[in-house]
Amino acid sequence: MSELRQNRVTGEWVIIATERSSRPEDFHRDVIKPVTPRINPACPFCPGNEKMTPAEVYADRSSDSGPNEQGWDVRIIPNKYPALSPDVEADWFEEANFFNGVRGFGIHDVIIDCPRHDQTIATMSRRAVEKVFFAYRHRYNQLEEDERILLINIFRNYGVKAGASLEHPHSQLIATPIIPTRIQLRLNVAKEYYEIHGKCVVCDTVEATLRSPERLVFETEKFIVFEPFASQTPFETWVVPKRHCASFGECTDAEITELAQVMRDVLYRIYSGIGDPDYNYLLQANPTNTRHREKYHWFVQILPRVVPSVGFELSSGIYICTSKPEDTASFLRDISPPR
Amino acid sequence: MSELRQNRVTGEWVIIATERSSRPEDFHRDVIKPVTPRINPACPFCPGNEKMTPAEVYADRSSDSGPNEQGWDVRIIPNKYPALSPDVEADWFEEANFFNGVRGFGIHDVIIDCPRHDQTIATMSRRAVEKVFFAYRHRYNQLEEDERILLINIFRNYGVKAGASLEHPHSQLIATPIIPTRIQLRLNVAKEYYEIHGKCVVCDTVEATLRSPERLVFETEKFIVFEPFASQTPFETWVVPKRHCASFGECTDAEITELAQVMRDVLYRIYSGIGDPDYNYLLQANPTNTRHREKYHWFVQILPRVVPSVGFELSSGIYICTSKPEDTASFLRDISPPR
Repeated sequence: MSELRQNRVTGEWVIIATERSSRPEDFHRDVIKPVTPRINPACPFCPGNEKMTPAEVYADRSSDSGPNEQGWDVRIIPNKYPALSPDVEADWFEEANFFNGVRGFGIHDVIIDCPRHDQTIATMSRRAVEKVFFAYRHRYNQLEEDERILLINIFRNYGVKAGASLEHPHSQLIATPIIPTRIQLRLNVAKEYYEIHGKCVVCDTVEATLRSPERLVFETEKFIVFEPFASQTPFETWVVPKRHCASFGECTDAEITELAQVMRDVLYRIYSGIGDPDYNYLLQANPTNTRHREKYHWFVQILPRVVPSVGFELSSGIYICTSKPEDTASFLRDISPPR
Repeated sequence: MSELRQNRVTGEWVIIATERSSRPEDFHRDVIKPVTPRINPACPFCPGNEKMTPAEVYADRSSDSGPNEQGWDVRIIPNKYPALSPDVEADWFEEANFFNGVRGFGIHDVIIDCPRHDQTIATMSRRAVEKVFFAYRHRYNQLEEDERILLINIFRNYGVKAGASLEHPHSQLIATPIIPTRIQLRLNVAKEYYEIHGKCVVCDTVEATLRSPERLVFETEKFIVFEPFASQTPFETWVVPKRHCASFGECTDAEITELAQVMRDVLYRIYSGIGDPDYNYLLQANPTNTRHREKYHWFVQILPRVVPSVGFELSSGIYICTSKPEDTASFLRDISPPR
């Protein structure tokens, strides 16, 4: 029997459609490794091609190397084709006495995750993944100082189906002067939950998931990894800090180190279990400088792109998920973590 | 310069990203007509195979034919693999004292648009398209009587990228005992707008679009066709009745006839202009038996699937649209309507 389930954190409804259900194994395919060079001379993100990109805004690099030279482990650059630009005033405009918006102020960075062209988080070394997440935190905290910015979105589009246009491992950051509606909805849900229950809805989700652990993939000292009760797509996975914490930027060094290891672990399980699917992950952030620190709780949402499309979902807001999250969690639990 | 634009009707924010913009012509490709038979003997939706589907719940058929026989023009059947089922109690359940939802009560129909396997709305005859929209209205009004149903979604997934799994021309209907969050947001926006302005936000959108018609594709006596100011994807197109009308089910015969012609016209322009892209359309309905008839206004949202993916958008709620709706509107305006 199908179920209509509501995600307590996002407010979204989904249909877990068991009549048309797929077993987790049905998504499995072998990892096909195309012959990808370690370094691709034509790739603007590969070492030696630093001059092909805009000048870096941050790099984790060896002390004997200079900016925009080789010798880096992680590099953050402005997107060459930015969706938003820092050189614009963030002023409102109006058209035809009705339509309105904000001029395209914002930040659009690319985080080049590692020098090697042929890697992904799932296959990178533990240390290399740590450097990526430390770079995220550095840039997050730097941009949080800018009062024009209300929201900092750090995300990764992996593979063509997930919207990646370049193969070299990279993440992106878009900082906006507005709060988009989907995020505002999540914030409203959190506020309303707090007003009724006097507690954070994400903290209570963590607690309920541990109490009834059929959707748990694994937990560590500081993080919990699970499939949401109301998953919008098969293998949707959340990585949530156990400590109540409103901002990703407030993570301690120990938390970043553990988060990197957890992300590598869960992405490896997905990579190995269902054959290197395209995916998106997003650090679900909260407004910068918010006064509601007790109500908001950051987390990572991973959305593998294993089902063809979400067209009806896009307009109706009803997601149809053809796997039970209890089944995909069990499947991912049984996969050995990476070495 | 990019712009952050807010859709006044849905509340959603988008980035119109001109730095990475595509001209409408860039989406053009020739219509490639695969050799598709008029009738496919293996297709469960083709005439002669009526027994391969669940028994029909409605058909527009010649008077000398019987149910589930040949002789029909449009046929509505229960989905063989339904996301929701009418044979379930719509009762709430709770899990782990926290997670909750509703047992999978609902209706999931398939509307077989026409007997021919090789057609689509853009290429069907005027009369054939009318029959589809009259069938939609018939079923909509029938289901509206059921007090357990709160929302009736009629939509079309066209092509693999849009989520269609069968080639034969068909639409779908999902009726739910809940209002999904995305729709609830649109309803809240409409209520709030009405409280402030004393007018319907969709009526005011129609008025503002006609006042500054750069996003207008065409208008008829009863309908307006335009690209939304805050389009979430290139070639997003709305078809809106000029008359304030809360429910699709209340359309007059003359409105249904004109709507069918308008839908055929706009889908033909998209088909011919950018080469038969995959698309979704959704009749944006309002809750059945609502008390807010003066605030809500139904319309059709068409979302061509011309850009690869929407992964980041799915989690962040920030859509990045790489074409200006003013440009795609101008492009579609210049295409001759179908004969």
